[in-house]
Amino acid sequence: MSSPIVDTAIDSPNLSELRGRFDAVRRRTSRLAEPLPVEDQVVQTMANVSPTKWHLAHTAWFFETFVAGEFIDDYQVFRDRFAYLFNSYYKGAGPCFERSRRGTIGRPTVETIGDYRSYVDDAVRRLFDSVDESPAWAPIVEVGLHHEQQHQELILTDIKHVLASNPLRPAYRDDCTGGLSDGSGSVPSVDWIDVAGGVHRIGYDGDRFCFDNERPRHRVFVDDFQLASRPVTCGEFIEFIEDGGYDTPRWWLSEGWQAVCEGDWQAPLYWERRGDWWSTMTLGGMRPVDMAEPVCHVSYFEADAFARWAGARLPTEAEWEVASTMADIDGNFLDSDRLHPQCVSESDGALRHLFGDVWEWTSSAYEAYPGFEPWDDTLGEYTGKFMCNQYVLRGGSCATSKEHIRRTYRNFFAPQSRWQFSGFRLAR
Amino acid sequence: MSSPIVDTAIDSPNLSELRGRFDAVRRRTSRLAEPLPVEDQVVQTMANVSPTKWHLAHTAWFFETFVAGEFIDDYQVFRDRFAYLFNSYYKGAGPCFERSRRGTIGRPTVETIGDYRSYVDDAVRRLFDSVDESPAWAPIVEVGLHHEQQHQELILTDIKHVLASNPLRPAYRDDCTGGLSDGSGSVPSVDWIDVAGGVHRIGYDGDRFCFDNERPRHRVFVDDFQLASRPVTCGEFIEFIEDGGYDTPRWWLSEGWQAVCEGDWQAPLYWERRGDWWSTMTLGGMRPVDMAEPVCHVSYFEADAFARWAGARLPTEAEWEVASTMADIDGNFLDSDRLHPQCVSESDGALRHLFGDVWEWTSSAYEAYPGFEPWDDTLGEYTGKFMCNQYVLRGGSCATSKEHIRRTYRNFFAPQSRWQFSGFRLAR
Amino acid sequence: MSSPIVDTAIDSPNLSELRGRFDAVRRRTSRLAEPLPVEDQVVQTMANVSPTKWHLAHTAWFFETFVAGEFIDDYQVFRDRFAYLFNSYYKGAGPCFERSRRGTIGRPTVETIGDYRSYVDDAVRRLFDSVDESPAWAPIVEVGLHHEQQHQELILTDIKHVLASNPLRPAYRDDCTGGLSDGSGSVPSVDWIDVAGGVHRIGYDGDRFCFDNERPRHRVFVDDFQLASRPVTCGEFIEFIEDGGYDTPRWWLSEGWQAVCEGDWQAPLYWERRGDWWSTMTLGGMRPVDMAEPVCHVSYFEADAFARWAGARLPTEAEWEVASTMADIDGNFLDSDRLHPQCVSESDGALRHLFGDVWEWTSSAYEAYPGFEPWDDTLGEYTGKFMCNQYVLRGGSCATSKEHIRRTYRNFFAPQSRWQFSGFRLAR
Amino acid sequence: MSSPIVDTAIDSPNLSELRGRFDAVRRRTSRLAEPLPVEDQVVQTMANVSPTKWHLAHTAWFFETFVAGEFIDDYQVFRDRFAYLFNSYYKGAGPCFERSRRGTIGRPTVETIGDYRSYVDDAVRRLFDSVDESPAWAPIVEVGLHHEQQHQELILTDIKHVLASNPLRPAYRDDCTGGLSDGSGSVPSVDWIDVAGGVHRIGYDGDRFCFDNERPRHRVFVDDFQLASRPVTCGEFIEFIEDGGYDTPRWWLSEGWQAVCEGDWQAPLYWERRGDWWSTMTLGGMRPVDMAEPVCHVSYFEADAFARWAGARLPTEAEWEVASTMADIDGNFLDSDRLHPQCVSESDGALRHLFGDVWEWTSSAYEAYPGFEPWDDTLGEYTGKFMCNQYVLRGGSCATSKEHIRRTYRNFFAPQSRWQFSGFRLAR
Repeated sequence: MSSPIVDTAIDSPNLSELRGRFDAVRRRTSRLAEPLPVEDQVVQTMANVSPTKWHLAHTAWFFETFVAGEFIDDYQVFRDRFAYLFNSYYKGAGPCFERSRRGTIGRPTVETIGDYRSYVDDAVRRLFDSVDESPAWAPIVEVGLHHEQQHQELILTDIKHVLASNPLRPAYRDDCTGGLSDGSGSVPSVDWIDVAGGVHRIGYDGDRFCFDNERPRHRVFVDDFQLASRPVTCGEFIEFIEDGGYDTPRWWLSEGWQAVCEGDWQAPLYWERRGDWWSTMTLGGMRPVDMAEPVCHVSYFEADAFARWAGARLPTEAEWEVASTMADIDGNFLDSDRLHPQCVSESDGALRHLFGDVWEWTSSAYEAYPGFEPWDDTLGEYTGKFMCNQYVLRGGSCATSKEHIRRTYRNFFAPQSRWQFSGFRLAR
Repeated sequence: MSSPIVDTAIDSPNLSELRGRFDAVRRRTSRLAEPLPVEDQVVQTMANVSPTKWHLAHTAWFFETFVAGEFIDDYQVFRDRFAYLFNSYYKGAGPCFERSRRGTIGRPTVETIGDYRSYVDDAVRRLFDSVDESPAWAPIVEVGLHHEQQHQELILTDIKHVLASNPLRPAYRDDCTGGLSDGSGSVPSVDWIDVAGGVHRIGYDGDRFCFDNERPRHRVFVDDFQLASRPVTCGEFIEFIEDGGYDTPRWWLSEGWQAVCEGDWQAPLYWERRGDWWSTMTLGGMRPVDMAEPVCHVSYFEADAFARWAGARLPTEAEWEVASTMADIDGNFLDSDRLHPQCVSESDGALRHLFGDVWEWTSSAYEAYPGFEPWDDTLGEYTGKFMCNQYVLRGGSCATSKEHIRRTYRNFFAPQSRWQFSGFRLAR
Repeated sequence: MSSPIVDTAIDSPNLSELRGRFDAVRRRTSRLAEPLPVEDQVVQTMANVSPTKWHLAHTAWFFETFVAGEFIDDYQVFRDRFAYLFNSYYKGAGPCFERSRRGTIGRPTVETIGDYRSYVDDAVRRLFDSVDESPAWAPIVEVGLHHEQQHQELILTDIKHVLASNPLRPAYRDDCTGGLSDGSGSVPSVDWIDVAGGVHRIGYDGDRFCFDNERPRHRVFVDDFQLASRPVTCGEFIEFIEDGGYDTPRWWLSEGWQAVCEGDWQAPLYWERRGDWWSTMTLGGMRPVDMAEPVCHVSYFEADAFARWAGARLPTEAEWEVASTMADIDGNFLDSDRLHPQCVSESDGALRHLFGDVWEWTSSAYEAYPGFEPWDDTLGEYTGKFMCNQYVLRGGSCATSKEHIRRTYRNFFAPQSRWQFSGFRLAR
Repeated sequence: MSSPIVDTAIDSPNLSELRGRFDAVRRRTSRLAEPLPVEDQVVQTMANVSPTKWHLAHTAWFFETFVAGEFIDDYQVFRDRFAYLFNSYYKGAGPCFERSRRGTIGRPTVETIGDYRSYVDDAVRRLFDSVDESPAWAPIVEVGLHHEQQHQELILTDIKHVLASNPLRPAYRDDCTGGLSDGSGSVPSVDWIDVAGGVHRIGYDGDRFCFDNERPRHRVFVDDFQLASRPVTCGEFIEFIEDGGYDTPRWWLSEGWQAVCEGDWQAPLYWERRGDWWSTMTLGGMRPVDMAEPVCHVSYFEADAFARWAGARLPTEAEWEVASTMADIDGNFLDSDRLHPQCVSESDGALRHLFGDVWEWTSSAYEAYPGFEPWDDTLGEYTGKFMCNQYVLRGGSCATSKEHIRRTYRNFFAPQSRWQFSGFRLAR
């Protein structure tokens, strides 16, 4: 494999700053696993969920394969078979172990994977030590860090699924159930924020890192529209449920209705009926659903059905991005360490909670931007090949690193997916 | 069920012209079944394929349910259980028999279904006889005729699958294998037609019938682009095959590669290797693949992979529609009775074969236009609920009625579908 | 393929008698299809069910392949591909079309299959015309006739499944709903017939035809036991249902309970709750369940569960065969043309309904007799390769030809099978 | 649940001896897990395989539920949900967690399960401390110990599957690869041992423990037969492979051939082609197949196909048990700690390797003996409900405790099972 050129357009990152971030990001990943007993780090509850230890190893494999293995002469891989075990889907990097069976392999142990991470870290640090100006591997390290931040979020969403699937409903940490609202029962009302249409530009053209799917910046025509000041809340979603939303085919896309029937969906994922109220799983264990919280762990189908029931619609990703310029990139991110969406606050005429808390489903299928060019070589498999049967989500969640997100950031999942911190806001 | 209001915006169709079309369309449907022995009309070869006799009955059910049953006082349905058997997917019209089991019911017989069609035709004709100005049912009859024309195409594509799945490879009719080219081996080269970008309008706003998904006409921004003068040919597609196209993951979307592996795809549907050449199934039986024919029976995945291999891309549906104003709506339609795509002709600087021959995959996921409003009531299930995980195809095929197609017409199928007359042309 | 030697031990059948039976059996098969419209003869409702027209063709293929093709010089097969289409499972005779897709092929038409049958009949008759003493093909014709009689029964049981699966519940013939009892509501009680144990001999050693699985006659040790004088009735089975039989895991084998849960079994196959009583499908259409009728269309699992609930058990096949010497081979067979089990009669100390009416599940897994030798060559696949995960049934049913059955006859089906005329009697 | 009466016929075990065995058996189970890192104890590689930690917990649950919970007043269960998590299939003991998902639950941790085991052990020991003569719970403890010994064997066979499924092929312990033969290449030939037929008695009627399925002792008729002096070896099985055994349908039962095709079987489980020889997985890791070893990890289908190819057959379980009186119960059991079958030794006219090494498939479907009565209550689910679609294996293996086995012991598995230490010997 020749050296993958990720993006020649961006300025080479400042090396000492990059090294600092390398250390910090890698350390945070390891820390995310620390509250978990070894047993929880091994299991897999559905094909889309990977074991914690797999994430720990896969992110090491990424740096080993695309950085150390490419740029260090006579680099010795830590273990030969790890490339097979911990490649996720890069066909250019060789065959890989079946995704749905990641939870069937006991070894390597968590301890060995820790050694693997240290081994790769040492190798990358030697690169930093030895380097001149603008090394070719710097953009790859940059990709690796953003890649690792994505897996940090997946570690949390995957382990939430693991813990919620366990009849014992164990907590990840006792202190992260999310702040309940003040109990007044009052939920701030929605304001509808006007956004002017016309020919706008979306996509990234800054001088920092972005994924290939955010480029090129290009023109789109958008009509005038209104965007809700805040995401839909659990309280509002309960109205939909109590109005028979899950029993009424007319609100649903055809595939959505099929998902409802086959999955026997009656509420968002992780909700459980407890007498006359609902409880939900959090990373801090089970607790009552709060009316004022953004509804979370809903599929695109549920977001779309709710919108139709409410006489509104979901925004397109272009609308979302155009409107996003009205809000600062701030909010309840991984950095707050709450690991749960926060209750909504008053609008006062502004867009609130646009960043952080919950990823927001848009009505846009995930497609290439006009003029899209994937990264070269194997890293070109990063995002482009998934541009089919997925929908775009925007804004990041309570499990996203703040420095990882951008206004132009395009997350994407299949429309039936519910295990991410996914919610939505309405447009009209 | 209250009366479905289809579209108040269009002028009421001229009644005597409508009646003439009613007679003609209904008759053509019945005639399409005539070359087939009863046995072929009963079977179903995959969930997406319906038996011929089911199409014959379902199109009668449509008029019975939405016209006769709604607008004739004390109308007696032909048979009580037919609503259950022949409703396709209109949940507003009650439960329906499982789609994948349509080929398991011997009765009603083909003869009884013929009686059913006559019974319903008579009822609708009585409506025509009795009518004053602008009856409320006229737009529904209009919908019914377009609905029936869609099923005419499906009768042909479904029976082609039935016949091709039969080890005997019987013909539908001996005289419709498509015209082979002149045998000179020369295939007209591709011209790249320039189309100017800018803010364009797409969607229907004329005064004739259109489906709800073609509205509202709205503005889109399109960059300058080039569109190939003609569809990709079998000869060109064979180059892709011979270059290992079906063995090379990098050309494929992730889900596409999965489809290739699971379905063991090595060529378009219906192609069979015969020594050092390919044969293909036609409605006239097996015959050699012609280099100069538009490639047909390919999925979106194959079209997309070919385009990537060729260093080009598929057009968006907006691009296709914008470019389509440069071509007349003419070509090889059902009306020509060839039932097979024709060999491509010289461009001479113009877009050729844009209409007819093969439906052309676009790169656009099938989504609602901004401001989309589905038809009222049960007919609102017609198109909107399928706006998920499907791609738009444009231009009609050799199995489409010429009067059925429009520049704004949006056909849609799942990206793995191959049994329609689906091909593609390139853009860049 | 060399000539299959079926059984050298039996006397060569009398040729003119054999020819008479050939004509009669072949004619009866064709007549069984006559009440059916072509459409019903084409469809397949589950993998185990074959279309009527497939049975008609397969039985012709059997004579073509094993008789005409083997023993007539320069015999020309009727159509080349028919061997592929109509071979059932004889791997020695080449590859065959997938069983579960038999209902997807429209052609050959029913008419062509009629021609096929005549063509093969003519060929076999030419053999009869030309023959000397004791031709090598005579035992094969004998096998072919018994094979065809098995398919006669399958034509009826398969078409019953086809008709019962159709929401219209059409009848095969209006006159075969089975005789209802006298309506007195009285059901003859069960007598328990004593049978002396000891070393007995079972299996066939007569001088007429038998299947290979009935040989060799051999010794078995059987304890003293009692056998019920008649099969379990619908009335008795309803007591089991009303006692929660289908809701109580303790009566069921583990795999049986799984079948109950997965299939949502709540009654025998074809029973439908109608208010406070049950109706059942017959070949004459739906009619009320009769208390005095032998329960039919139950699986081994249901028979076994009922027996456990009743504090009894099923007989082994050795017990059944030993006891059968106390009864004449007579009863309600296909020959009576009722096509439905008859109500039970008084015992008066004798075994009743042992032959005909319903096949009786035994507790014996279908295994080779000690010293079993399958027929030579391809016909050796006839019975031996199914000796796994099947249970033996004895005695024939209302769809079995009387001349086809023997005391030693071993029928066998998978324990979850319910579409045969299968019932049971108790032992203890 | 009332107290389950296991068997009133057996003498009450000597209490102090029972206590000694309780301590020893429980300790051995825990020790079997010791060589494994925690990670390996959590995973599950197929539905039939349970995680090591599940076995550790389930065997504790057994004593908690059937002994402590029944016989200790105000016994407090260790954790409420453990009954749900660690019940295997006793419907009489309440609902249980889905078998195929046992590998998806991280908690309780291995450490907690260790505490659970100690907690239950303490409770049972208190019972022993407090007891008078012949306590009602003593037979249940006896059952629990035999139950636990069965799970000891499953711990080993399941972990072998886990380790063999891991691309790293890790060893359970480095010292248990089985003794290779002397390398002379000579394999002792087979002697055929004559066994006299007649009416024999099989089944248990001694005064020690046995499972309910071994009773009652009863008479069977057996013809004269010959039994091979030793199991079939790997060398002999390789001849079958090299003769195209896995490619030839005529050797196989119909369901066996299906298993070969669907599973792409080309050799026994765990065998891997390495150049021109075979390697196999052992509990000590991969090593070359030894010609002189009994072939192991074959299904009933493979045993049956080999026998047919070899012109022989498998013995019935009655034949096996009758012949077994000619051999001592001695051999290569768990007690030898080899954990792998030993190479075969010379016969010298005697039956060799009948006990230990490999379980031997018989041709007998697993059925109730005449007069079979399951244990009372919930323990009645122990063996009886599996008497369907399974085959009997006899003699124990290298993973069976010597004190656990009897001549009358009936093990049973589905005919496609291969992950047990299962081999076979021939009869004729």
